[in-house]
Amino acid sequence: MIGIGAGDPDHLTLQAAKAIARTDVFFVLDKGEVKQELVDLREQILRGHATDGQYKVVVGRDPERDRTSDAYVESVDDWRRRRADVCAEMIAAELGEGQVGAFLVWGDPSLYDSTLAILDDLLDRGELSFGIEVIPGISSVSSLAARHRVGLNQVGRPIQITTGRRLAQNWPEDVDDVVVMLDAQTAFTAHTDQDADIYWGAYLGTPDELLIAGPLAQVAGEITEARAAARERKGWIMDTYLLRRRRS
Amino acid sequence: MIGIGAGDPDHLTLQAAKAIARTDVFFVLDKGEVKQELVDLREQILRGHATDGQYKVVVGRDPERDRTSDAYVESVDDWRRRRADVCAEMIAAELGEGQVGAFLVWGDPSLYDSTLAILDDLLDRGELSFGIEVIPGISSVSSLAARHRVGLNQVGRPIQITTGRRLAQNWPEDVDDVVVMLDAQTAFTAHTDQDADIYWGAYLGTPDELLIAGPLAQVAGEITEARAAARERKGWIMDTYLLRRRRS
Ligand SMILES: C[S@@+](CC[C@H](N)C(=O)[O-])C[C@H]1O[C@@H](n2cnc3c(N)ncnc32)[C@H](O)[C@@H]1O
Ligand SMILES: C[S@@+](CC[C@H](N)C(=O)[O-])C[C@H]1O[C@@H](n2cnc3c(N)ncnc32)[C@H](O)[C@@H]1O
Repeated sequence: MIGIGAGDPDHLTLQAAKAIARTDVFFVLDKGEVKQELVDLREQILRGHATDGQYKVVVGRDPERDRTSDAYVESVDDWRRRRADVCAEMIAAELGEGQVGAFLVWGDPSLYDSTLAILDDLLDRGELSFGIEVIPGISSVSSLAARHRVGLNQVGRPIQITTGRRLAQNWPEDVDDVVVMLDAQTAFTAHTDQDADIYWGAYLGTPDELLIAGPLAQVAGEITEARAAARERKGWIMDTYLLRRRRS
Repeated sequence: MIGIGAGDPDHLTLQAAKAIARTDVFFVLDKGEVKQELVDLREQILRGHATDGQYKVVVGRDPERDRTSDAYVESVDDWRRRRADVCAEMIAAELGEGQVGAFLVWGDPSLYDSTLAILDDLLDRGELSFGIEVIPGISSVSSLAARHRVGLNQVGRPIQITTGRRLAQNWPEDVDDVVVMLDAQTAFTAHTDQDADIYWGAYLGTPDELLIAGPLAQVAGEITEARAAARERKGWIMDTYLLRRRRS
């Protein structure tokens, strides 16, 4: 599993570049969505670092996820199982004895990514046998902080990383600094009563990068509009943000 | 500010390597401690990526911090001010008009690092004028997760990153997954009553790397011993860990 950074090809580490160079087959789960720019970006990274610029990509069809279900965890588990089936087929069919296969993961593999769980599932099933090496990457969170030139934490204080779904329910207990990912619902708009700043970033590391920062109550509307307009224009959006409550 | 990863020279990103190549002067605050291996590691990175392998390092004496003080935040603030004085002198004396200076930061600059706050202080004082670019790095947290081949979060769940000092007081509210940094007191030993796993790592990314994982109650003693022995042997230690509570 190779973390390739969240959008900027130069966020690739030397370790990731070396791993790409010694990979025989790259596996990709294709979501069937039209994020051609992300496909192009991945190809650019592979071309740049594969030995002799030559590489083999095997694309599997990513199964549909039941997004209507209320049982969020169950639907994710079921989806993961079906993804594991697809991966098992790809690996069995395409990877020879002693060869190295790689999954490229956007950002850092440790943050809200299910590839590792899929590979663990496959090993548990016992039909395939392989070793796993995980290569860390620059996450969208590190990227966000760097672009806004802020630290994630305040001195000696904790940071929470959470999802839009959870932030919509409540501001987490006992933390002033909250990083939000996977937010399809602009959950920050539920907290404009807080004395907080927001540091928002979309398409981080790419030429389309958007950055907005300021007092939450003041810029929430601006962010909501910029987000909707960008999404409309490009057909998709990936954004993340840090909420920083001022200490009383 | 260049994040250079938490110990493995191959964790350097292409962006960081390019930034090193265009830096005129590297600034270092010397803690006066004997972590010669870290100095060597930094020099190895600089030699490897500076143009023609030539580079200029200016070392300032890092002021002592009052560690006896109960007022943790105040003592850190005061310390930061005195560090800013040292940095101001170094920059004024060594960096010419239009030149590029760099501070190398272990791990990712966004996590528990005060360099950015120091530079912001300097700009606020108004005596010096410069632009700041922050280059993200692989944090010890990403490194820890990669080496243990685990995700930081469980599906749809939050993660908290906190300090040993805070974990010693209590397990944070409403989170099952807690990453702990800056722990000089093996604070995990206060939570062996939890049904939790621990993934511990010291000297991550270096040849001395230590990894221990398992049920917290079972391996807490082993970690405490391994930590004390390593610290004794090398004279210093840097460790971090993930606590993962099993969901009831
Ligand atoms: C499935 S998670 C994967 C995160 C990834 N592993 C990482 O380390 O960034 C996807 C979420 O990451 C965030 N994200 C990923 N790439 C991003 C980018 N280039 N700009 C802004 N947010 C991004 C968004 O919050 C998105 O909803
Ligand atoms: C002042 S903080 C700086 C963290 C750094 N900016 C990062 O991104 O990893 C120092 C703490 O980081 C953790 N740390 C840094 N390097 C480490 C390493 N190589 N192995 C284990 N822990 C490390 C330890 O918890 C240590 O107390």
